[in-house]
Amino acid sequence: METDLQETTLRDRARAFVERDSVRNTILGVIIFNAITLGLSTSSTVTDQIGGLLSVIDRTVLAIFVAELALKFFAYGWRFFASAWNIFDLLVVSVGLLPDKQGLSALRGLRVVRALRLLSVVPQMRSVVQALLDALPGMGAVIVMLSIVYYVFAVMATLMYGPFFDEWFGTLGRSMYSLFQIMTLESWSMGIVRPVMVVFPMAWVFFVPFIIITAFSVLNLFIGLLVNTMQTAVEDDDEAEFEKLRELVRTETDIVDVHVMELRQEIRSLREELLAPRGESNGQ
Amino acid sequence: METDLQETTLRDRARAFVERDSVRNTILGVIIFNAITLGLSTSSTVTDQIGGLLSVIDRTVLAIFVAELALKFFAYGWRFFASAWNIFDLLVVSVGLLPDKQGLSALRGLRVVRALRLLSVVPQMRSVVQALLDALPGMGAVIVMLSIVYYVFAVMATLMYGPFFDEWFGTLGRSMYSLFQIMTLESWSMGIVRPVMVVFPMAWVFFVPFIIITAFSVLNLFIGLLVNTMQTAVEDDDEAEFEKLRELVRTETDIVDVHVMELRQEIRSLREELLAPRGESNGQ
Amino acid sequence: METDLQETTLRDRARAFVERDSVRNTILGVIIFNAITLGLSTSSTVTDQIGGLLSVIDRTVLAIFVAELALKFFAYGWRFFASAWNIFDLLVVSVGLLPDKQGLSALRGLRVVRALRLLSVVPQMRSVVQALLDALPGMGAVIVMLSIVYYVFAVMATLMYGPFFDEWFGTLGRSMYSLFQIMTLESWSMGIVRPVMVVFPMAWVFFVPFIIITAFSVLNLFIGLLVNTMQTAVEDDDEAEFEKLRELVRTETDIVDVHVMELRQEIRSLREELLAPRGESNGQ
Amino acid sequence: METDLQETTLRDRARAFVERDSVRNTILGVIIFNAITLGLSTSSTVTDQIGGLLSVIDRTVLAIFVAELALKFFAYGWRFFASAWNIFDLLVVSVGLLPDKQGLSALRGLRVVRALRLLSVVPQMRSVVQALLDALPGMGAVIVMLSIVYYVFAVMATLMYGPFFDEWFGTLGRSMYSLFQIMTLESWSMGIVRPVMVVFPMAWVFFVPFIIITAFSVLNLFIGLLVNTMQTAVEDDDEAEFEKLRELVRTETDIVDVHVMELRQEIRSLREELLAPRGESNGQ
Repeated sequence: METDLQETTLRDRARAFVERDSVRNTILGVIIFNAITLGLSTSSTVTDQIGGLLSVIDRTVLAIFVAELALKFFAYGWRFFASAWNIFDLLVVSVGLLPDKQGLSALRGLRVVRALRLLSVVPQMRSVVQALLDALPGMGAVIVMLSIVYYVFAVMATLMYGPFFDEWFGTLGRSMYSLFQIMTLESWSMGIVRPVMVVFPMAWVFFVPFIIITAFSVLNLFIGLLVNTMQTAVEDDDEAEFEKLRELVRTETDIVDVHVMELRQEIRSLREELLAPRGESNGQ
Repeated sequence: METDLQETTLRDRARAFVERDSVRNTILGVIIFNAITLGLSTSSTVTDQIGGLLSVIDRTVLAIFVAELALKFFAYGWRFFASAWNIFDLLVVSVGLLPDKQGLSALRGLRVVRALRLLSVVPQMRSVVQALLDALPGMGAVIVMLSIVYYVFAVMATLMYGPFFDEWFGTLGRSMYSLFQIMTLESWSMGIVRPVMVVFPMAWVFFVPFIIITAFSVLNLFIGLLVNTMQTAVEDDDEAEFEKLRELVRTETDIVDVHVMELRQEIRSLREELLAPRGESNGQ
Repeated sequence: METDLQETTLRDRARAFVERDSVRNTILGVIIFNAITLGLSTSSTVTDQIGGLLSVIDRTVLAIFVAELALKFFAYGWRFFASAWNIFDLLVVSVGLLPDKQGLSALRGLRVVRALRLLSVVPQMRSVVQALLDALPGMGAVIVMLSIVYYVFAVMATLMYGPFFDEWFGTLGRSMYSLFQIMTLESWSMGIVRPVMVVFPMAWVFFVPFIIITAFSVLNLFIGLLVNTMQTAVEDDDEAEFEKLRELVRTETDIVDVHVMELRQEIRSLREELLAPRGESNGQ
Repeated sequence: METDLQETTLRDRARAFVERDSVRNTILGVIIFNAITLGLSTSSTVTDQIGGLLSVIDRTVLAIFVAELALKFFAYGWRFFASAWNIFDLLVVSVGLLPDKQGLSALRGLRVVRALRLLSVVPQMRSVVQALLDALPGMGAVIVMLSIVYYVFAVMATLMYGPFFDEWFGTLGRSMYSLFQIMTLESWSMGIVRPVMVVFPMAWVFFVPFIIITAFSVLNLFIGLLVNTMQTAVEDDDEAEFEKLRELVRTETDIVDVHVMELRQEIRSLREELLAPRGESNGQ
């Protein structure tokens, strides 16, 4: 029981430590400093001169982050995973643990995602990201619809144009990429549809409706999002105004009512005064 | 009369069957399964190995869909066509009946539209599509205006630039396609207008206003749609709030009124009590 | 005086005639018919076969339009020019009078603008166009600001990049066209700015802010427009709701007030009845 | 003390002078005139003929502006710098003082920014610009978030694709420019991502999310801006309506209340009249 108590005490201390403002700010400082050194490491002139130093800094920062997360895990136990931000931090930091073993340049670049911890450490950034994510569920149904339409068009494009335009529609993946490009309107006509129309003159019957449908869906997505945000904002204001007004109606009519009731009281006492001398039979 | 009765019973049974949740979900499962197999059929490595199987699956699924729709038609009679979704299903399924006879690769690709039945079978998807379609009538007038402007510009472009730029403006159809491309701003200048301006230096007088007019019209289309959606949303909320407020005003004033009326009653009885002994002439 | 009277009568008759529904619809029919024949005239196979007929139709339609406008001018006198739609019709029809003399293909194409009379003849179209135009004044200040910024950037681009990139920035006009293209984001980087940056490596300092400023201004233009439209729409609804509520507050309190006043009357008559027998000195 | 007084007087006079409407309008006229002459100086035919005159005009205008600003500085003292518009004017005019010494064509073009003084001199333009700037703080958090994401993606792109695509991602600056281009969707696929995918087939995993994240963030920026503007606009209207309604509720209930109070008064006097003859003990 003593060890258990001691451990609890250690956990409490660890929690108090990681939640301290100075510790948070230090971590924030390390993140910013690391973001800058990672930025510097993109310049070959800088890496030629202080590449070793940057490498040491990078490993030190990684060690700090690992230590911080380990401490947090120790402090919170499995509740550590209850916060999506902790999982985000864990993923983003653990990317830094991969490249040293494999030495792939692509993975080396991925280390930079660590700088995204700025989003998870600064509370204001957290709430901005939260607001962005909160907008997603309301868009769910339209996104699913868009995905179905998108999938159907991609399969059709692959089956119809794949054999002739392998680079653009050769596989389902390529078709999806090309349709995404077309959806963003980038070189859709000059780059893709006009060449396709040389072989399939009626190809515009496929692509123009695709553009109109996706544009219209994205528009509706956007309108839905906007109306939602607006409604919440306006409603809160109106709610308060209506409450104020209701309060006023209540207060004002209550004043009149009180006066009416007082009047009643006066009439009753008048009645009593008037009737009292005449006889006791009318009392009520 | 007996056969008629029996047929009615059969129809009722058929209706009950197709409306059963388990049947709907089975059909939904078949649609999703078919969407996946159609996706797989885009890969030549897959078709090389299990192409025969995919083909059998496809024909089986088609048979299931045809059977389902035939049953529905039997169950509902001509009322089957009263639902636009049924007509949609019919069209989308019947596309699958064409390719086997003609073997055109373009038609083979069209079979995939069958997967769009996901939109007509899942109620949530139905309502999303319905919401998108409901937005159209409100856009009617601007779309007609845009079409007129579009048609006029297309005829002008064909007459003016057609003889020199056959590929882009050679026929009314080509002009319409090119103007659609220009409307989406894709390569409008580098790809089309600058080359045209080499021959017709003043061509920008034609194309720049076209871009501005169509952009402004599309913008207004969008604003109209947005204001409509917003208005409905805000109105419903406000309607409820106003109703609540009206109710409160009524209730509160009614309370006062009731008290005033009670007061009147008390005064009347007071009057009666006061006047009664004096004489019967004042009674009312 | 007799001729004057007769002329007035003729004018009245002319006015009644041009305002008759059947005449309007005939003109509308002629416009649509002409729009179709103008569309047909874009096809060389059609013009080869019935080119003469189309030409005759075109001249006949032109004659009908000229006659209609002449009649309108006779009917309304100088007030004819009070309606912007009449001026629009006049301009659009008179374009058709030019080409026969000069035979320029560009002017031949311009005849088609006549089909835009659909916008001025159909009342619903008139109100859509009116709504679009009504939106302009509210955008005035931002458009002026955008024009100043645009002009300054165009002059700068001409002075700085003109000597090296004659085709894009050689004259003020070319710069304006190129900046319009950049504003629409068409090929701005790959087509224009990257080549410019080969000569002037810092050119992005000029172009990127230009894109951001114009995008932000256009966005604000759009937001202003939207807020205006929305406000009007919501206000009208709210206005009605508030009026209903005000009416209710008035009615409800009036009911209470009337009851209070009746009560007063009853108390007064009670008083009179009570005091009357005692003496006349208390009357008021 | 006398000189101090005299200086104060001079300052007051200077202030009165620069604030005079006629002086402001003269300056405005000079700005517009200069904007036109600067525009003319872009044409080589014009500069060949009256280049000397334009140069003289330019120097004269510059002298006028310098004199005006010097006078303003004298008039307001250090408070001159309290207005951001004065600082803007100062910067914009002082650009004109550089080129004569260095003769760089780039700097020569910069003189034109002087025409932007139109924005600072005309009050309506000032308020438009002010409105645009006022919108910025509300966008702060999302802009910071976007910047962090942008920076991380730029560093990653430089580290991963820099060695192979030097022109696009060779340095952090080039990556930032290329990512800005991709964010505007200009040639993102055909121009950049498809070529990158030839070397790195999975590059779409990097670029497609980048496009979606930035597009979604910009959208939210825009929605935030819109909701803010709208809310302010609608609130002001509603505020007035609610105030009107509150006023009405108060007035109406006050009328009833006054009548009730009058009634009370009448009952009290009735009571006094009734009770007075009976005895003085009940008076109050």
